[in-house]
Amino acid sequence: MSFSPLIRQLVDALRILPGVGQKTAQRMALQMLERDRSGGMRLAQALTAAMEGVGHCSRCRTLSEDELCPQCADPRRDDSLLCVVEGPLDVFAVEQTGYRGRYFVLKGHLSPLDGLGPEAIGIPELLARVSVSHFAELILATNPTVEGEATAHYIAQMLAGKGIILSRIAHGVPLGGELELVDGGTLAHAFAGRRPIAD
Amino acid sequence: MSFSPLIRQLVDALRILPGVGQKTAQRMALQMLERDRSGGMRLAQALTAAMEGVGHCSRCRTLSEDELCPQCADPRRDDSLLCVVEGPLDVFAVEQTGYRGRYFVLKGHLSPLDGLGPEAIGIPELLARVSVSHFAELILATNPTVEGEATAHYIAQMLAGKGIILSRIAHGVPLGGELELVDGGTLAHAFAGRRPIAD
Repeated sequence: MSFSPLIRQLVDALRILPGVGQKTAQRMALQMLERDRSGGMRLAQALTAAMEGVGHCSRCRTLSEDELCPQCADPRRDDSLLCVVEGPLDVFAVEQTGYRGRYFVLKGHLSPLDGLGPEAIGIPELLARVSVSHFAELILATNPTVEGEATAHYIAQMLAGKGIILSRIAHGVPLGGELELVDGGTLAHAFAGRRPIAD
Repeated sequence: MSFSPLIRQLVDALRILPGVGQKTAQRMALQMLERDRSGGMRLAQALTAAMEGVGHCSRCRTLSEDELCPQCADPRRDDSLLCVVEGPLDVFAVEQTGYRGRYFVLKGHLSPLDGLGPEAIGIPELLARVSVSHFAELILATNPTVEGEATAHYIAQMLAGKGIILSRIAHGVPLGGELELVDGGTLAHAFAGRRPIAD
């Protein structure tokens, strides 16, 4: 290793970023040092501010530095719809669909093998919120994985018979794909969920 | 955009890193916030320390926070050899070959179209260093690109007739590759530079 100690520390610290290995970290460190020191300082300040300042929204549990996140604080959103997702990035993804109801953000999915039961991912808080609010529909938008399905199924069981419509986002073929590349399970869901073509 | 301001700032700041777009920056920011805040703080500190503390080695011009970088400060290295490279990452690459002479780090390569002449990349400093030192050989290890070749050629012209051996790293087929995948120019160099097989 032939870098000086400060550069070596920076390279090591950059490796905590997902998908960044030794070579990429070196390139990042030297590019900032040679061409963009003000950008590097801005990044350091943004990191400090975010790591110290960002907590969780008291209502939906997503990441936010305010008591309420932008989605919970917005009075124009539809209070009769609640969308349950596995993490903050999913909120961002669902926002792109045009959905304008409320959110509840779990801490991941049920995973008994990793010791993650209902308490660990925040299901009691979800049930508490549902019991004091008046949602007409709860959209379960956990990931289309085995764990995500199990989590959605568990939540649906806990809320059955409470007069709330429980829905699950549709499984099917993604837009822009080719049928021959779609896996059998997905295609089976797409067939089972087929709908008549509207005139 | 549905992130709170501090998270948005962090995502924007992460995009100065080479190869990091919007989606990757979001993933990086949320992963640090959810799983590794101490790592994020360490990164912020390492960034601040490096951006403020790292300057250039007074002798070889590579990045270093000390007056002399580790390569220039090491008394056991061979003072008769000088390797000229285009940037600090190249020092790291050359170190892996086992080379244990001295270095001079240019600021890139000659590029008249971008207004980068000999002064801009540090050639006067190189000539000054060569004139006060006693190098037996100068190894021109600029990149094997048109600009790198031109830079090596220019330096060789400036130092011709001073009694120093001027050498250029060999061009040829890289180890582990396949001939059919090597471009014609490289293969032509490999043929022109062929050597008898030692017994």
